Order: sequence, then structure tokens, then C-alpha cells
Amino acid sequence: MTAPAAPRKRGRPGHDQDAVLTAAVRLFNERGYDATSMFDIAESLGITKSSVYHHISGKEQLLQMAMDRALDGLFEAAGEVRALDLPAIDRLERLIRRSVLVLAERFEFVTVLLRVRGNTVVEQHALARRREFDTLVTDLVKQAQAEGGVRPDVDPATAARLLLGMVNSLTEWYRPRTGGADAIADAVATIAFEGLRR
Amino acid sequence: MTAPAAPRKRGRPGHDQDAVLTAAVRLFNERGYDATSMFDIAESLGITKSSVYHHISGKEQLLQMAMDRALDGLFEAAGEVRALDLPAIDRLERLIRRSVLVLAERFEFVTVLLRVRGNTVVEQHALARRREFDTLVTDLVKQAQAEGGVRPDVDPATAARLLLGMVNSLTEWYRPRTGGADAIADAVATIAFEGLRR
Repeated sequence: MTAPAAPRKRGRPGHDQDAVLTAAVRLFNERGYDATSMFDIAESLGITKSSVYHHISGKEQLLQMAMDRALDGLFEAAGEVRALDLPAIDRLERLIRRSVLVLAERFEFVTVLLRVRGNTVVEQHALARRREFDTLVTDLVKQAQAEGGVRPDVDPATAARLLLGMVNSLTEWYRPRTGGADAIADAVATIAFEGLRR
Repeated sequence: MTAPAAPRKRGRPGHDQDAVLTAAVRLFNERGYDATSMFDIAESLGITKSSVYHHISGKEQLLQMAMDRALDGLFEAAGEVRALDLPAIDRLERLIRRSVLVLAERFEFVTVLLRVRGNTVVEQHALARRREFDTLVTDLVKQAQAEGGVRPDVDPATAARLLLGMVNSLTEWYRPRTGGADAIADAVATIAFEGLRR
């Protein structure tokens, strides 16, 4: 299964684009998007600005790629869960667990996504996809309620926002280097679905 | 109980300082703290910059006042709850409910607080008070666990972060003009303590 390495090394646009994206996202999260220049990104990689422009059209493309990386992960999780032949309450629980894992795996990308306020068309598009994901979770709560799996006394939209609020809070306190995402996904699912009270 | 109004009107430093703070906090949340100048704050009130400096030493004092308004609300809630003669699980639930109400009542101030990243001494001091509040919630979870009121299979620090993550998510989606904070406090308490699953 080990392919010859040499032919892959020439160019490697995918690899180089990825390196630029990783460096950019780190700077966006450290300094903020507005305070980061293409020069800063090039400098942090030890390459020239024109080398960066060889792979990327500009800062906005990097922002879009970062947000897509986060959103694609969430929508892939939703797609996988949708395909399961399970009651809605169990699909909802799996989606919430998977969202925690997506956030942990794509931590820097999700952090970029959650800080965006909709100042540009690219940001507005990402916010629209976030709302689409929220709606998808809300619909799953509604369906679970209709099936009798979720208690009837909670508003589905509020429940969805609070579930995702719990998940998204990881950007504030989770440390990817420390890990433990599985245990956190368990804790989120236990609290949200079974409750803290014994 | 109606005191004569005239003597209060002269000067009213408390009132004027409050107006400056309200205007500043609105701009901090709209444009960001760094992008807001003392001139912007004066302009939004239709007064001169020197009138603003008559009440306030500078932008950093406004930031500190805003964060204190948020933190004081949370610590007052913690103080009230501490005084109650109830099992820890019930004090914890009340503190979480009260935190939702503090966030709704002091929405703009809490929003300022939660966006702060610790770039200055004033911000670091506020972050330290936030951590103190987190620890207080963690200790309450531990105590409730020791009393058998909280399930033993959740880590207290993780539980505290997730509870506060749910509460703090309101800054992303709650609309103070629409209201409904009591119903949201109920939803948070129901999900966190009883769980969504029927």
C-alpha cells in the first residue's frame, strides 16, 4: 500500500494549501481575522507573500475554507445520523455527540466559524449554513417530541439552541492537546438527555 | 414617597455616567471594543468628548464598569443562593436559573464580558473573576454529588462548564426586546437537571 513518494512531492498544491490554511486559522484565532494580513500568514510559514498567493486568492478564501471545514463536518455528521434506522431521540443524541467530536477534531476551524458576525457576504453565507444546521436540530427535537421520545414541555427551538450552546461552549474551554473529547461527548449527552439530578 | 425632583437634577453624575456606559457598551458590542473611540461614544450621545471625560477617565474604565456590572450580578446571585437552607442540588439549580435571568437583565454587559480575551490587566482581572464563578459552580456540583443529589458519573468541572456554556449561549441568540427569560430559565433547568429524554 506504500505508494512511491517522489511523484507526489512535486507541487503538492493540496498539501501547501492546507499548510497555508492551518497557519491562517491559527492567526485568525490568536489576533482576530481583521488584524491578520496575508503578510503575517506568509511570515508565520517562513515563505513569501507571493508564494501564498500561488495557492490562495486571498484572506477571504482562507476564511471561507476554514468555515466550510467546520460546517462540512457538522453536515456530514447530520447526513450519517439521518441514515440511521433509529427513533428520533436516539438520532438526536448521536448528532449531539458527533457534533462534540467534530468540534474537537476541527477545533480551530469551528472557533473561526463561531466568532464570525456576518460582516461580509462570505460570513453571511456561513451564518446561513449555521442556521440551517440549527433548524435541522430543531426539526429532530420536534420529531422526537412527536414520537414521545422527548418531554413535551420544552420548546424545540429553545432546546436546539441550548444543546448547541452546550456543544459550542467547547471553543471557550476545551484544549485539543489535552484531548478527552469522547468523555466530554458522554458528559454532554448524559446531562442533556438524562439530566444531572439523580 | 415622591421626593422633590429638582435637587436631584443638578449634576446627576450617577445618571450621566450610566448614560455614557450604556452608549459605550452598545458600541463595544456592535463594532468591537478596539474599534470604538471615546469620540464615537460622545458622538452617539450627541455630546462633546470633554463632556464624556467629565464623568469617565477613559475607555478602559467603561470596559471595567461593564464587566463589573455583569460579574456583580452573577456573584450577587451566588450570594443569595448560598444563604438558602436547601440541598446543594437545589441551590445549584437556583443558581443556574438566576444566572439566566442575570444574563437576560444585563444582556449587553454580559455580552461585553464574554467577548473579552485577556489582552489587558483589566480584562485579565475580569477573566479571573469569571474563573472564580466557574469554580463556585464546580464546588456546588461536587457538594451535590457528595449529598447524592447529582449523578456520580459526571465530572464536576465538566458539568459546570457545560451548564454555564448553556447559560452563556444566550448572548448568541437571546433577544432582550422579545423577552421570555423566565421560560428560558425553566428550559435550561429542565434540560440540565431532568434531561430531554422522556
